[in-house]
Amino acid sequence: MKTLIINANPRYQESSTNKFLQMASQWLGDQVQWVQLDEQINSLELSDAMITDFQHQLLAADKIIFQFPMYWYSAPASLKVYIDQVITTNLNLKDKVLATVMTIGNNLDDYQAGGSEKYSISEILKPYQALANKLQMKYIKPFVIDRFAYMEEQQKMQLIVEYLMLLSNLEPLSFSQKQQWFLKQLNNLSLKDDTKKDRLAVLIDQVDLNFNELDDLKANLQMIKDEGA
Amino acid sequence: MKTLIINANPRYQESSTNKFLQMASQWLGDQVQWVQLDEQINSLELSDAMITDFQHQLLAADKIIFQFPMYWYSAPASLKVYIDQVITTNLNLKDKVLATVMTIGNNLDDYQAGGSEKYSISEILKPYQALANKLQMKYIKPFVIDRFAYMEEQQKMQLIVEYLMLLSNLEPLSFSQKQQWFLKQLNNLSLKDDTKKDRLAVLIDQVDLNFNELDDLKANLQMIKDEGA
Repeated sequence: MKTLIINANPRYQESSTNKFLQMASQWLGDQVQWVQLDEQINSLELSDAMITDFQHQLLAADKIIFQFPMYWYSAPASLKVYIDQVITTNLNLKDKVLATVMTIGNNLDDYQAGGSEKYSISEILKPYQALANKLQMKYIKPFVIDRFAYMEEQQKMQLIVEYLMLLSNLEPLSFSQKQQWFLKQLNNLSLKDDTKKDRLAVLIDQVDLNFNELDDLKANLQMIKDEGA
Repeated sequence: MKTLIINANPRYQESSTNKFLQMASQWLGDQVQWVQLDEQINSLELSDAMITDFQHQLLAADKIIFQFPMYWYSAPASLKVYIDQVITTNLNLKDKVLATVMTIGNNLDDYQAGGSEKYSISEILKPYQALANKLQMKYIKPFVIDRFAYMEEQQKMQLIVEYLMLLSNLEPLSFSQKQQWFLKQLNNLSLKDDTKKDRLAVLIDQVDLNFNELDDLKANLQMIKDEGA
């Protein structure tokens, strides 16, 4: 399975989220192709050669991810330049998966009726869903990263795991699939070099902890059920 | 009242809709400012001078219109460049009116649940509505022009009238307001030169006809009501 990340972010050089996600994506090696759009696109008109290259990347991918910080309720302009010129109805992207990864500066729960932003993320991202519909692609729920700057280390570790799961699986996983996926990753990673091992150790502890907490919770629930019976 | 049209259309030179709307808007003289975005914007980064100019235009307007052919379920990239860099939350656009004028190539009724496009125009344009919400602007219903190329002369005349009403009034008009508005326009226009008079004559006949048809309809309805009583 091959994942193509079309990353649109005019400030990618200063963005800590951008660095964080790019580093994370590198764990998956060749499985993931990261396209830094604003590094390549300056003008509103793409050359024919660029369009052809971008189209080949799309055709070679199983999963396509539009990744961006939200600028005025959609992706930065560079992604629109890309979409307007690279994607045509003649390009056969049928049955590929389209996902969005979006970072927002405010709270996710502002995005609902009665919240300050009034509309949900689903509503705001409708143009991408409509695009997937038109191209007969499979649209999956957005991966939203809110208030990254305020995240604690533990939350960032959790974010890496969830993000890697998104990149390396076509569709969202159930809990038991996540557990299996994670164990597989651990086995693969144990073969690699020492520096990576150290960086991973924290992550592994964290996820183990989460799984254990969940097991505790399950056991407690069972006890309550048994007592009630 | 001052109306600012931010017209985004990379193919504005070949577009017959673009020419048609621009010609129509000229009837209103200084009341309307038409900005041909793709003539001015080539790169993804606007100069400070351009940003300042664009911001002054926005601040001077009572009604702001984003006008564009739909490209992949939103405006062409040039409008996103503009929005991303010109509009900031520091720019006070409170209580101004935001309208969208959008041309689409297929039928408007494809845009609904069960239709080939699946989502409504309201859903697809949600990012602009969210922008209006954020800036405390008054968002009014979109003006959608579908299948312009297939319109007959009569439909195009009707379109001009509806479009001029949109440009010259802050909010949508009721039927009697439309009638008043139209008579006012006729009085103004009768003062102008002969070539314009000729071009208008067709339009005037057409609208008179429409009003008469409506009067007939009203009279018929009254008759049916009276007979029923």
